[in-house]
Amino acid sequence: MTETETNAYDVVVLGAGPVGENVADRTRAAGLTTAVVESELVGGECSYWACMPSKALLRPVIARADARRVPGLSQSVQGPLDASAVLAHRDYFTSHWKDDGQVGWLDSIGADLYRGHGRLTGPRTVTVTGPDGGERVLTARQAVAVCTGSRAALPGLPGLDEVKPWTSREATSAKTVPGRLIVIGGGVVATEMATVWQALGSKVTLLVRGEGLLPRMEPFAGELIAEALTEAGADIRTGTSVESVTRENGTVVAVTGTGDRIEADEILFATGRAPRTDDIGLETVGLDAGSWLPVDDSLRVTGHDWLYAVGDVNHRALLTHQGKYQARVAGAAIAARATGETLAAQPWGAHAATADHAAVPQVVFTDPEVAAVGLSLAEAEQAGHRVKAVDVDLSSVSGAGLYADGYQGRARMVVDLEEEILRGVTLVGPGVGELIHSATIAVAGQVPISRLWHAVPSYPTISEVWLRLLEAYRDA
Amino acid sequence: MTETETNAYDVVVLGAGPVGENVADRTRAAGLTTAVVESELVGGECSYWACMPSKALLRPVIARADARRVPGLSQSVQGPLDASAVLAHRDYFTSHWKDDGQVGWLDSIGADLYRGHGRLTGPRTVTVTGPDGGERVLTARQAVAVCTGSRAALPGLPGLDEVKPWTSREATSAKTVPGRLIVIGGGVVATEMATVWQALGSKVTLLVRGEGLLPRMEPFAGELIAEALTEAGADIRTGTSVESVTRENGTVVAVTGTGDRIEADEILFATGRAPRTDDIGLETVGLDAGSWLPVDDSLRVTGHDWLYAVGDVNHRALLTHQGKYQARVAGAAIAARATGETLAAQPWGAHAATADHAAVPQVVFTDPEVAAVGLSLAEAEQAGHRVKAVDVDLSSVSGAGLYADGYQGRARMVVDLEEEILRGVTLVGPGVGELIHSATIAVAGQVPISRLWHAVPSYPTISEVWLRLLEAYRDA
Repeated sequence: MTETETNAYDVVVLGAGPVGENVADRTRAAGLTTAVVESELVGGECSYWACMPSKALLRPVIARADARRVPGLSQSVQGPLDASAVLAHRDYFTSHWKDDGQVGWLDSIGADLYRGHGRLTGPRTVTVTGPDGGERVLTARQAVAVCTGSRAALPGLPGLDEVKPWTSREATSAKTVPGRLIVIGGGVVATEMATVWQALGSKVTLLVRGEGLLPRMEPFAGELIAEALTEAGADIRTGTSVESVTRENGTVVAVTGTGDRIEADEILFATGRAPRTDDIGLETVGLDAGSWLPVDDSLRVTGHDWLYAVGDVNHRALLTHQGKYQARVAGAAIAARATGETLAAQPWGAHAATADHAAVPQVVFTDPEVAAVGLSLAEAEQAGHRVKAVDVDLSSVSGAGLYADGYQGRARMVVDLEEEILRGVTLVGPGVGELIHSATIAVAGQVPISRLWHAVPSYPTISEVWLRLLEAYRDA
Repeated sequence: MTETETNAYDVVVLGAGPVGENVADRTRAAGLTTAVVESELVGGECSYWACMPSKALLRPVIARADARRVPGLSQSVQGPLDASAVLAHRDYFTSHWKDDGQVGWLDSIGADLYRGHGRLTGPRTVTVTGPDGGERVLTARQAVAVCTGSRAALPGLPGLDEVKPWTSREATSAKTVPGRLIVIGGGVVATEMATVWQALGSKVTLLVRGEGLLPRMEPFAGELIAEALTEAGADIRTGTSVESVTRENGTVVAVTGTGDRIEADEILFATGRAPRTDDIGLETVGLDAGSWLPVDDSLRVTGHDWLYAVGDVNHRALLTHQGKYQARVAGAAIAARATGETLAAQPWGAHAATADHAAVPQVVFTDPEVAAVGLSLAEAEQAGHRVKAVDVDLSSVSGAGLYADGYQGRARMVVDLEEEILRGVTLVGPGVGELIHSATIAVAGQVPISRLWHAVPSYPTISEVWLRLLEAYRDA
């Protein structure tokens, strides 16, 4: 190709992760023409280096822990996990890092895939540099949607490059189990990956700068996870910074702020995320390269009526499911604006990603599981709501005791005292992962407390914690 | 005692199962004086011969099945369940059929317990015949609440008594595993107990009069359970009646309508329930002994302003959790009427058991689990709602595939097309038991479809079936 080819579309989507895929799906469903640009694998971080592999790795750990807590069964669950079988299963769930299936799906919805690196080269214009170095210009009559996601953020430690540290990508795709693993961080990636690798046979040391794990959640979540990880054999050191890392004869050495020297075979940095917006031509449309992109509730970038930023890049909620939700909203908004339809932009309308503010759910697939939706008590108070938190010890629920011998867990419901609705719910304990969606519906649905009394939990399930929470609120 | 003692209360409760306990709790909390009469164990059927023992027996079966479907773990789950450990754990969960704990709880709320057989001997009057034959008369200023529950109904087969058949009581409290077990019936008790005893080592033959299992639920529920039970080794014969049963030299012989002769060590009749109202003096207040007691939404018996029938006896929903719900409503209604307070008797008000009509949840703890709430498609159509059912194959949900290799399951949502709310949801599959409460909140909360789109399921959980259901409805 000697001359640059130009193709015109209604919508150009940068990034073919789950978020980009959903923008493409919704705009195609509305009859718009859509191009999708991807420089790596179609399916994105989630499919190959995050949700899918991490959960494929975690499920055996959780299922084994569950089975070992059931009298009559526990005795027959012997020995460690079969690490090679677990890793092979993980490979299956990432389709062995091949994207044929997802490419086929994009094709089936009639979106055009451009492989290569896409950069804005002006308003409504994206230039794609293909693997062969050739360039194509894509123009977008209606919208460009930036769905490039995020990458692991690494701290500025000298010599870090030579150490070849793990990020979430290596931690979810590693082919062998390191004998010793240092994990830096205390958030979701850190706790999930510490859980996996400790269970698969690594000796894990978790170095946490802050006071505890999962700092953005209710405090008891991190406390219960820390207890469980410690019991599983991990060494957790909170209030610990890392001052230097080196690799000597294959061995990683981390030196902490207090001068402790910790050796390991690998080191994982799970120290936050950075937006993948540094090389997508933002500067050509007056935006800062490498910045998170602020958007309104239709996911449109402030000040640019043709530009959308959907998923991690807008920094509203760095979660696949929330990005997909935003993608559905953004896709519908793009389509509505294309046809001149009035937007349902009021809170909870079809063109407003209201849940981003009030009802973001998250499940941490550790043992015990942690699941939360909406605001923590601290967040609700900070937001100016007049709230009351009620807590229930999950061991008081019959269904929990039946689920696991010696069940340990905790639930909190944050009630808005003015409106008598829920602002947030947090559950920690074995088997609570699927239970959080009940809270998500209650919070997003703004179902009043008086009506929740009519939502009867089946006896004897763990869901009966709902009755205990309502009673605790009534009797408080 | 030569003279009959009389004690006056505000409320007299007949039956100290979970339902009676909750009526006592709510009336005591309102400051009324309450007596509770119980002829067997405080805690009732649920604690000793139903929910608790059955779920203690089922949990190891389900947990083992779950564990064996997880690559990397499955190989290490060897051999059968340890039946003696399972039975011992069941004994623990029934407190070895001793009620000290529950007696202590009744005492703690300040309710007076009368051990003995209670019978109405006129309006607002209950006479208790104690274990020593002595009588006490209890009078009730405000209300008598009949919470005597139900018992297994046995068919009128000649010679049945000599066979000493199992009912739900024996099936949940048996001390040894029969080599061969015949189960008569196709409902919840039949499927759950067939699941338990087949897994503990019995050879189970299930004789079902009707066309399939779980006939009151969506048809696919019974179909999936039948497939799984058959795969587990049970012999299921539908469309099969039992004409006679005998026990010869210890062996039970059942002869079917087609002349087949089936031998077993024990035979379980799970053929429905009968109200325990045959010997409680109903005839002294103009009601029929042995009948179910029709009530209004405050659980008050039609035509008797002082008489309440709560739980199984009113035949609204024969489920512990629903009986407890009714007990909370009835207790509140009794208290409100006692103080002359206006009742919140409108639908979904605090004094109306509205969920009985619209949002009864049920979990069947089989493998796969079955969970449903509200109306099935057939029930919704029969009730005159204009509805549409949308189905989703659970194997299409990422979280399901991660939960279990080769996941098989199905979900149905019944949407009211006029009001755009859900009339019912049914889920069948491993791990769906805790997921149904999300549907219970959606149905009882009458959360509109448009709002359910903002209740984002966490990725990758089985709860993402919600997104698939909404998409299926949107695209239908």
